[in-house]
This record gives sequence, structure tokens and C-alpha cells, in this order.
Amino acid sequence: MRMLSIILVIIFSAIPFVFAQNISEGTQFCIDCHNSINPGIVQDWMSSRHAKTSPIEALKREKVERRISNEDVPANLANTIVGCYECHGLNTDNHKDSFDHFDYKINVVVSPNDCKTCHSVEVDQYSVSTKAHAVGNLTQNPVFDLLVETTISPKTIEGEKIIQAKASHFTRRETCFGCHGTVVDVKGTKTIDSDLGKVEVPDLAGWPNQGVGRINPDGGMGACTSCHSRHAFSLIDARKPYTCSQCHIEPDVPAYNVYKESKHGNIFFAHGNSWNFDQVPWVIGKDFKAPTCTVCHSSLITDLEGNMVAERTHNFDARIWVRIFGLIYSHPQPKDGATHTMKNADGLPLPTTFTNAQAADFLINKEEAQSRQAQMEKICKSCHSTDWVEKHFEKFDNTNKETDGIVLSTTRLLQKAWDKKIVDNKNPFDEEIEMKWVQQWLFYANSIRYSSAMTGAPDYATFKNGWWYLTKTLQEMKKDIKK
Amino acid sequence: MRMLSIILVIIFSAIPFVFAQNISEGTQFCIDCHNSINPGIVQDWMSSRHAKTSPIEALKREKVERRISNEDVPANLANTIVGCYECHGLNTDNHKDSFDHFDYKINVVVSPNDCKTCHSVEVDQYSVSTKAHAVGNLTQNPVFDLLVETTISPKTIEGEKIIQAKASHFTRRETCFGCHGTVVDVKGTKTIDSDLGKVEVPDLAGWPNQGVGRINPDGGMGACTSCHSRHAFSLIDARKPYTCSQCHIEPDVPAYNVYKESKHGNIFFAHGNSWNFDQVPWVIGKDFKAPTCTVCHSSLITDLEGNMVAERTHNFDARIWVRIFGLIYSHPQPKDGATHTMKNADGLPLPTTFTNAQAADFLINKEEAQSRQAQMEKICKSCHSTDWVEKHFEKFDNTNKETDGIVLSTTRLLQKAWDKKIVDNKNPFDEEIEMKWVQQWLFYANSIRYSSAMTGAPDYATFKNGWWYLTKTLQEMKKDIKK
Amino acid sequence: MRMLSIILVIIFSAIPFVFAQNISEGTQFCIDCHNSINPGIVQDWMSSRHAKTSPIEALKREKVERRISNEDVPANLANTIVGCYECHGLNTDNHKDSFDHFDYKINVVVSPNDCKTCHSVEVDQYSVSTKAHAVGNLTQNPVFDLLVETTISPKTIEGEKIIQAKASHFTRRETCFGCHGTVVDVKGTKTIDSDLGKVEVPDLAGWPNQGVGRINPDGGMGACTSCHSRHAFSLIDARKPYTCSQCHIEPDVPAYNVYKESKHGNIFFAHGNSWNFDQVPWVIGKDFKAPTCTVCHSSLITDLEGNMVAERTHNFDARIWVRIFGLIYSHPQPKDGATHTMKNADGLPLPTTFTNAQAADFLINKEEAQSRQAQMEKICKSCHSTDWVEKHFEKFDNTNKETDGIVLSTTRLLQKAWDKKIVDNKNPFDEEIEMKWVQQWLFYANSIRYSSAMTGAPDYATFKNGWWYLTKTLQEMKKDIKK
Repeated sequence: MRMLSIILVIIFSAIPFVFAQNISEGTQFCIDCHNSINPGIVQDWMSSRHAKTSPIEALKREKVERRISNEDVPANLANTIVGCYECHGLNTDNHKDSFDHFDYKINVVVSPNDCKTCHSVEVDQYSVSTKAHAVGNLTQNPVFDLLVETTISPKTIEGEKIIQAKASHFTRRETCFGCHGTVVDVKGTKTIDSDLGKVEVPDLAGWPNQGVGRINPDGGMGACTSCHSRHAFSLIDARKPYTCSQCHIEPDVPAYNVYKESKHGNIFFAHGNSWNFDQVPWVIGKDFKAPTCTVCHSSLITDLEGNMVAERTHNFDARIWVRIFGLIYSHPQPKDGATHTMKNADGLPLPTTFTNAQAADFLINKEEAQSRQAQMEKICKSCHSTDWVEKHFEKFDNTNKETDGIVLSTTRLLQKAWDKKIVDNKNPFDEEIEMKWVQQWLFYANSIRYSSAMTGAPDYATFKNGWWYLTKTLQEMKKDIKK
Repeated sequence: MRMLSIILVIIFSAIPFVFAQNISEGTQFCIDCHNSINPGIVQDWMSSRHAKTSPIEALKREKVERRISNEDVPANLANTIVGCYECHGLNTDNHKDSFDHFDYKINVVVSPNDCKTCHSVEVDQYSVSTKAHAVGNLTQNPVFDLLVETTISPKTIEGEKIIQAKASHFTRRETCFGCHGTVVDVKGTKTIDSDLGKVEVPDLAGWPNQGVGRINPDGGMGACTSCHSRHAFSLIDARKPYTCSQCHIEPDVPAYNVYKESKHGNIFFAHGNSWNFDQVPWVIGKDFKAPTCTVCHSSLITDLEGNMVAERTHNFDARIWVRIFGLIYSHPQPKDGATHTMKNADGLPLPTTFTNAQAADFLINKEEAQSRQAQMEKICKSCHSTDWVEKHFEKFDNTNKETDGIVLSTTRLLQKAWDKKIVDNKNPFDEEIEMKWVQQWLFYANSIRYSSAMTGAPDYATFKNGWWYLTKTLQEMKKDIKK
Repeated sequence: MRMLSIILVIIFSAIPFVFAQNISEGTQFCIDCHNSINPGIVQDWMSSRHAKTSPIEALKREKVERRISNEDVPANLANTIVGCYECHGLNTDNHKDSFDHFDYKINVVVSPNDCKTCHSVEVDQYSVSTKAHAVGNLTQNPVFDLLVETTISPKTIEGEKIIQAKASHFTRRETCFGCHGTVVDVKGTKTIDSDLGKVEVPDLAGWPNQGVGRINPDGGMGACTSCHSRHAFSLIDARKPYTCSQCHIEPDVPAYNVYKESKHGNIFFAHGNSWNFDQVPWVIGKDFKAPTCTVCHSSLITDLEGNMVAERTHNFDARIWVRIFGLIYSHPQPKDGATHTMKNADGLPLPTTFTNAQAADFLINKEEAQSRQAQMEKICKSCHSTDWVEKHFEKFDNTNKETDGIVLSTTRLLQKAWDKKIVDNKNPFDEEIEMKWVQQWLFYANSIRYSSAMTGAPDYATFKNGWWYLTKTLQEMKKDIKK
């Protein structure tokens, strides 16, 4: 009798995965070998929606429920499930990293330009965002380039001087450009010893990397795998805050830290296991009960009756009106995702001068800011009263003003140190007192703003990485200058 | 028969929620609009026990299983489920924030005095705790008031002097008083643009806020929503450590950080998903296998046979005998939750002097301390031998003594700095060396004591925020004074 | 039909636990009392595999699926489930902590030597690891002993001097030796007041403690409960990263912090709840989709077809070729788990000198390192291409070189401070500038290496506890020396 129940369970829940008939010959060929060489990849893909659905089937859903944004897809791809070869074998002529692999021409790197075949709306939205331009926004901005080099370069001692060498591509790849992305370039080909013997493959620079602004061998910008992990490419990952936390984390971008300590985070961690992270559209109150990162910044949200609360966007700047991190002062969101193209009154590619004069031509105007804020408020109001929401953003505005003020005070102290020749200002990031100044805006003021924006983490804003250290560092700098 | 009921549960649990017939007219009227304006609120409430149970039904349970602590409730509330109007429409005469809203008189803020209608035991317990007095314990204590102002006030530079302005109510609300609570006061009325057109509502100061000591417009102290999130008001939230972690977190109150790194936390994070957080009474070994915060500090705990291990309390001080955080030295728990009423030998409202003479009259005596410790030990012994438990608390006692000792050494160094006029002692919290002294007790000594109390986090107590920095800061201060 | 299977499952899974008939008389006697005195312990054990399986049944499984590693067990233990008395009543002649307890002779502490009765392969592997020798590796190494004492000792002030007392056994137990383990010794016997009246028990020093290198009253080294929590002794705990995080955590060994911010961690936290942590062997792609700590360092891993990816080991050094934490420089893994037996060119028991000359005789050679790396790469290749994996480890090698370089620069600055008599080098750990030097290697360089090794946490390696502070500390030390 017990045996019977076990048998029934096996029949009904554990029927071994049977491939849909419409798997392509190319993909089947890939799997035949890679299933034993890289079982993790193949099994992960098998758990994906890609492995179970052909584009033509995906298009049969109501538009609002679709995960595919193109209205149609090339005929040769429409009827097969989305397997290895469908993605790695696409657009090989455009890919500098394409190569012959057991008689199939494939690319090592799948680029947003490839994903675009089915997900063009997402790729187009993403392509104008600061995320897509994350590499150039560091490397083509001499100010940030100097900050990067000063921070991550090897240092040696000559006498009592610190000599700074050039940062290695290895260290660049695992620090700043781990999040921002690398330029993946093809240096030639090389032979590797694989489990199946010697195989010739492209020799790639800047690889592996999954930074958000990765520049791919076909010129495409971005790595969809930053948030939709290979090879399940799941919605679930992207909607959970763990994904964002890989980069948006203390001390410089403490979004995840603040979320964790906020009421919203508290509800997610206590109850999130019973929520549905795989539903499109994502229904407030039914599928989830408190925001995760993407609720506010990206997801397609409706109420129970199907009324639109927020349209999906993959331009993660699109719903943001004020930029609170990474720069000296808070400022309106830049118009262009390529922020290195800005120019402030001092001729530097920054949204403000060191003393907080805004480069207004490059920043969104008041109307655009208000329209974005109204969109965000609509999401908030799903669970909060109008008054609650308005008071929240009034407070947030004031916090940006106050933290900008104390950073300006700090900058004035630093200016005194420069004027008194206590340190030289050739490199504003390398002397001890300058690094304290950087911490004021990059760590502490940012942290307070995040706590304010995300309505939580009062202790974080006070003692952990906020007002306490803002004040203490000011006192330290005052002492340093007095000496 | 049991089988039949299981089948029925399966059938009926999948049917979409149908309102119980006994919903009040007022609540139905609220829902009719707010379900589309604030679907998140309504859906969250619909998932609550309040939405499914009338007080009269709640009272049918065995006393030990009840979530309602009053023996009876007003007749007009007894037979309806606990909806919007039952709480927001209560005691409107006592509420300065009551207003007419589409012909119903309601309050914006629900206060513990309202919750008391069904949960009076909890409210009475809470009302004498330090939590309930958390606002006055900062604002009416000039020492803490100075620490607050020094920390979170805007600072500007004049010459080389740092000028401290008055902290804004915005910043107060999102830092110290984000946890401690605000005074919610009514400034008048105002008209807001809601989705249903212009609506007149009370204009509230200090709102929104969910700090534990919030002073509500009806004079009630506390916000039950601090721990039982709106609008599900669930046991589950409150019993999981994420809720407590909103405020009890590094660096000054690192209860959650220590828990995470402790064996107890390890077991919770590895297995907690399969525990039952919704059971009353909460059964050791059956419902849960390792303590979360409330197991030791608040929950009603029994063993499998129903023997009482710990009575429920909402006075979170009631099981605590020694206070290990927030003050310069560890000390017996204050007798009165309003700690600002204490007076030490120097006339300051602190449990000890700066050199650790205790204000014994205001602190519980040895007998009371022993009785509380015995109660806590009873909980420990559910899973640990008598010897294990005794040795644990012997160690804890010693740790309090040792950390008090090293803080006293630091205070003596600071006294030297004052004596030598290196800094002035008018404000003991604003100069760099004084802030180092504060970190010694507020961050490092506290952290070590938490690690000891919660029997875990050895690395936290050593290198993260404990002995390493205690020692290093002492060395730094010695150097500062020598100069 | 589906309904039927659900019903059948309900019937068969919900039958309350009935003791197997083959419970020993001793264990039954223990439970009769302790079930009401310590219900948590008994319930936890009842949920264990030990409570449901006798060794003889465990041996019926295929070898690769077994949790028991001995081929046979003593006849008197073979047919009973593994209860209280089976473990606490073992080898009492070897145990200094054995005592008569209601006519049964039992030991307080269960030691690896007892577990060895069924799990000898694991105990033998463990016994040669650095973990097993974790106590002596601190106490018998005068360099580390000095670091420990300097850090955790009570300090008092005499004049302006800091006087260091001897660290108490209490503080030792809850700091360094909380992870490393204590020496559990028997001081005599004592009478305790238990719930059942006065009971005479051994009076133990160094107890309670669950550090990995605990030296037990029978001489056995280690505490299996460090990772397999009492009294369920589950695989599940040990395979989840929360267990390891008790000790392998920021700032000095930030394995868990880096994991959390890595792509691997992201996948675990987003999806781990649906994985099977209780399967042996542990199948890549089926039971789990991304590594937890033990996947790389300990577990028995196969692919879906049963091909071996990694053999189980309880010598946690066995798969590691380079040691990246706890010492001044990275270096090949020591040959012997008892690292205090090494001797460098300066005669100190360290793997390198202060200026990074390796004590090569005591470290594994290149061939052994390559063989271990090849083993680790095999695990990586389950989900990553050969090229991806090779490039990863090429980067890791470079990072070790670069961080060693910047630590050497720091050491040279410290040498200048010693040469100039700014501080004396009698104790290299106690002055402020020396503590900065320690942080360079113990906190910051280590953190960068972990981020590199575990392919994640770019922000951690940059701003949190990596390059930023490496650089800042170097600048601070330069300034300190100039004065």
C-alpha cells in the first residue's frame, strides 16, 4: 500500500524530463557532449523556460503576460525551443569571437544584440541606460579613471615615497570592472586541453566577466547574465534582491544593506518564500506583498484587476529623478546614459563642480523629474496613502539637501588643506585627508540618502555608515588641518 | 473522518477567498474604494487572521492558544471580523487625528490604546517597558539629547571652526527617532490630491513613523506595527529575527549580527523554513528547534506536553536582568521603563557615573535579577544541560566585568585629555578623541557583551567590532594624548 | 487520480513518529527523563537519521550512498538505532569526563574518537587537518600566542601607559578559541542543582565549546558538532553556508561575506530553498545548481550519470593548494595540519618570513599544488568551460602576487618605523602603526584574495575591505612615519 503511494508520486511528480520534439539539431549536438562535460550548464538550462517553450508558443500568450517582446521572430527560430545553438550560433558574422567547433560556427559570448532577436524592447531600453555605458563612464571620464587607478594600483615604497604602478587587467576585472564590465576582445586563437582533447578556441581578453556594461565582441553593450544568471535566465533571480546586491552594496552603494534593515526588507525576508516570483504581470498584493528592488525600478506591475501600476522597463534610470550615489553631490538624473559626455563649469565630465554648481544642460529638467517621481509614487500608493507618500519624498528632498551641505563643508576643509599646501591637489584622491573627503560623499552621505530614499535603516544612517562618521571625519579633518 | 477533513481542506483552500458574512458595513465601505486605490493594503489585510476571525470566535479557543488577551470585547465589535473600520474608527473622541472621511469618522493613526480593545494584556505590559518610553528616554535625557544633536545636526565651516546647526525634524525622523519613535501631532487639516479627488485630512507632524515609542495623537505610546507589520499584523513577522534587526543591529546594538554568526542563528537560517512560526503556544522541539529573538525575550513557550516554559510578555525588559548596550557600562536593568527619570551620583539621568558608580536606587536589585536570570535559564535548559547553562552565564558575567574595565581605562585616558586641555569637556561627544571614547562603549564593548550573551560570534567579538578595536582605539588615544 | 496519490501521501507521511523497536535500553532510559527536562535535545535527535536507522540498516545501501563509512560496526551497536547511550556511553574508560549517572556510566563530551566507531574515514581525514590542530596552532605558536594575548587581554592605564593583563579563560573561550576550540579538561567533580535534584557531574574546564580543534577529555581532537549541530547531526546544516559563516567571516576570513556578494551566492540565496541538501551522493545540476562551501571543499559530488566529480573529504585542506588568509603572505598549503611545527628562515613557526621568504620544506610542492588545483578545476568545469576556469585561476594567481606585493611595501614602512624608533618591535602587534600593518594583511589583502578566489564580490575587494583601505592605510602609515 505504501509502495503504491510512492509509485504514484513518482509517476505524477517525477516524470523524467522529455525533450520537446522541436529541439534543433544544433542544440541537440551541443547537449550530446556538454551534458557530460558540463552537466551543471545543461541541467540549469533544462530547468529554464527557454528549454520548454518555442518563440511561437511564447507569442500565443496575451501581450501583457509575454516574456518575449518582439511581435515575431525569424522563421528559422520560431518553432524550436531556445537552446544552446539558437543563442551561441546567432549572428556569427558580427562576432569577432565566432569560431568553428566540431563543424558548427558558434560564438563564445552571447551579447544583448543576440538576445534582441526575441527581446528587442528590453535591449533597446537597456542600451540607453547608465548600466549599458558603465565601462566608458569610468574609463572615458578622466576623474573616475584617476580614482580607479589611485585605488586599485599596486604600490611600492621608495624611500618614504609611495610609488603607484599601473593597475593590472586582472585586478581591474575583479574590482571596479567586475561590476561595470570589461571590454571583451579577441586576441587571436589558442588551443586548450579539454576533456575531449585539444580544441581551438578564440583567445579572449577581459573574459570571463558579467559586468552590466560589458562590451562584447560584436560591439553589443551589456551582459544580460548580470541579473538573469546563466543558463536558466530566470525572472526569479532578477526579482530577488540578492542579484542586485552583488554590486549595489555597502559602502558606496548600500542599497541592499539599507533594504535589509528596512520594513520592506523585513517583510520580504519573513514572507518572501511564499510569494510568486515567476508571474507576468507581477500582481501587487497577490504575487508579492512588499517591494523588492525591481518592483520600484523595473518590473511590470499591475493590481489584481489588471490595472497597470508600472510598465516594465530595462532602462534602470527611467524611473529615477535624482541621483544619490557615486558623485560628490546629489543631482538630477543625467539625460544621457553615457555620463562621461557631461561637462561642468570647470570643464570636467561631472554633473556638478566640486562646490556643487550643477551642469544643468546635461541633467533632466524639473518637469521630467516630477513626471518620474509621480510614476514612482504611483507604485508607493499601492500600499500607502497619498499623504504618507508625499511626506516621505519631502523628507527625502531635505535629506539630499542636508547631506549635500555637509559634503560642501568637507570640501571647504579640503580646500583649506590644499591652500595651506598640507597636501597637493594634483591628484585629489591619493593623500590621507583626500581619502577622508572621498569617504564623506562616496560612503557616508550616500548611505544616509539611501536610507532616506528607501524609508528604512535608521541605524545605518545614524551610526553604521552615516551621520556619526560624517561628523567624526569632519572633526578629524579639522584636526589634520590645524596641525 | 480525518481523511475527509483533509480532503475538504484541500478543496476549500484553493477556492478564492470569500468574505465571511460578518464584515461590518464600515469596513466594507472602506474596502470598496481602497481595494483599487491601495490594493496592497487590502490584500495584505485579507491574508491576516483579523480578516478571518471575529473576536467572539477568537475567544472560543483554549486560553493558552488565544491570540486575544481580553476576556470579552464590546458587543458591537464581538461578532464582526476585525477590519479597517473596527480599528480606524475606534475611540475617535480621544484622537486628535480623527476626521470625517466620506461620512465616516476615522483616525489616521491606530494606537496601542485602540489595540487594547482586544489585546489589553499586551498593551499593558508594553506600556511600562523602555520601548514604550523610547522617545522621552532620548529627548528628556539631556545627555542623550546632546549625543543625538551632536551626531545628526548639519555642520558648516566658519574659518576652521565647525558650526553645528539644529537637527531637522526630517533627519531626526529617519535616524535616532526612526527606531525610537516620533511625537505624532496634529498641526491642523490640509487638502490632498488623491486618486478620488481632493480630500481633507489631518496635517500630521512626525508622520509617517513606526518607531517603538511613537507618541500617538491619542497619547498612546508605541506602534504595534513596529513588529507586526501593517496590515497583516502577523505573529510570523514578529517571531523572525528580521523584524528585530531593523533596529537591533550593528554597530551599537549588534544583536542581529551576533545572532547571524551564532550557532542558534546558523540553525535558524539552515532549517527555519520548515518551522511553524504561526502556532500558539509555541512548542519547543516541535514548532522550532533553536531560539529566535522572541523565544528568549517575549514568546509564550511550552514543551510538547504543554508544560509552560515561558509566559508571553510584551514588556521586552521583563526577562532581562543586565543591560549591556547604549550606556557606558553594563548595569542591572532599570526598574522603570522611563529611564530618563534616573539620577546618578553626578546628578545625570544615567544608570552609572562616567566612572561606573551605579545609581542603584533606580536599578533592579539582586533578587529580582536572579529571578529573571532563572526564568531565562529555564528556556536555555530546554536544549542545554544545567551545567552548560550555568557556565554560560558565569562567562557572561565575567565579560561584562572585563568590558566595563577596559571602558573605564578609556574614560581615564579621556579624563587626561580633558585635564591637559587637549579637548574641552563641555560637550563630551564632539571632539575626535571623545568620539573614539564613545565608540569604545557604544560599539566595541557592547559588541563583545552581545557575543557573550548570545553565545556566538567569536569572530565578531575578536576582530569585527570587539577586542581588536577596543585595543586599537586605546592605543590611538594614548598616542593622541602624548602629542 | 492525482487526488488519490495526494491522499495516499498524506496517509503515509503524517503517521506520527513511532520508535523503531530496536532502541537500546540505555537510550530509552535517557529519554524517559530528558524528554521532559530537555525536550529540545530529544526532539532534535528524534528528527535525525540517527533516530531512525541502525548501523546495520545504514550498511545496506550502496557504498556511494552511505553516510556510514566503516564497513562494519561492533555487534552490540549494529542493530540498535543511534541514540543517547550509544554515543555518550561509548569508550568510557578513555574518557576523563566519564561519570556514573543513575547507574549508567556516561561521558559528558562526545569526541571524534567516539564518532569514529561508525565514521572512521571522516575522523581519520579530519585528524590531519589544520582544523583538528586549531588549538595548538595558536597556543603553541609564540607569534600567534602573542597576537592573541595582545588583542584580547584586559588593559588598564598607569599614568599614560597601557598595562596588559593576562587574558581570562572566559574571554579566550568566546573569542579566538570560540572558533579554534578549547582544551576540555576535568577539574574534579561537582554537584549541580538540576530539575531532578542534586546530581554529581564532572567539573569541566573549557566547556561548553564547539570549536573545530577542541581537545576532548579522551584526547580526541575536534568537535563534529561545529558543523553538524547537536542533536540532529545533519548533512543539511553542514552543506549550507550559514554553518561555515560562524567562523569564516569578515574581517579576517571573509569567505561568507564574499560568497554572499558573488554570483554563486546570489543563485544559492535565490533558489537554494528548492534544492536537495540531504542527498548522498550530491548530484550537480539535480540536487543543487551552484556551489555552497562544501561543494568545493568537502562533499562527495557526482554528475547525473553517477560519474565522480569529487570524492568526499573531511580534511578541509585536502583540496586547497594556496593559503590566502591568517598569515602575512599567501603561500602554498602547509604539508602538516599542525602548522606550529613549521620553521622559517628567522626561526619562527611561520610559512614565510616577515619579508616573504617561504619555508618551502614545510609547504606542499608544485606537483602537489597542481594536482589539487586540477581537482578543484574539475568541480568548476561542471558548470564552466575550460577556458573560463583557467582564466579564473590565472587571475587568482596574479591577485595573490599583487596583494603580497603591497603587504611587503607595508612591512617595509613598518620596518622604517622600527628603525627610526618611532615604535619598538618587541611586540609587533601592540602599537597603533603595527596594528595598521596587521590590518593590511589580516583584513584587507585577505579580503581581496577571497574575492578573487571565489570569483565575486568586486565591491568588497574595492571599497568595503580591500584596495581602498590597503591604499588608505599605506598613506596613513607614511604620514605617521614622516612626523
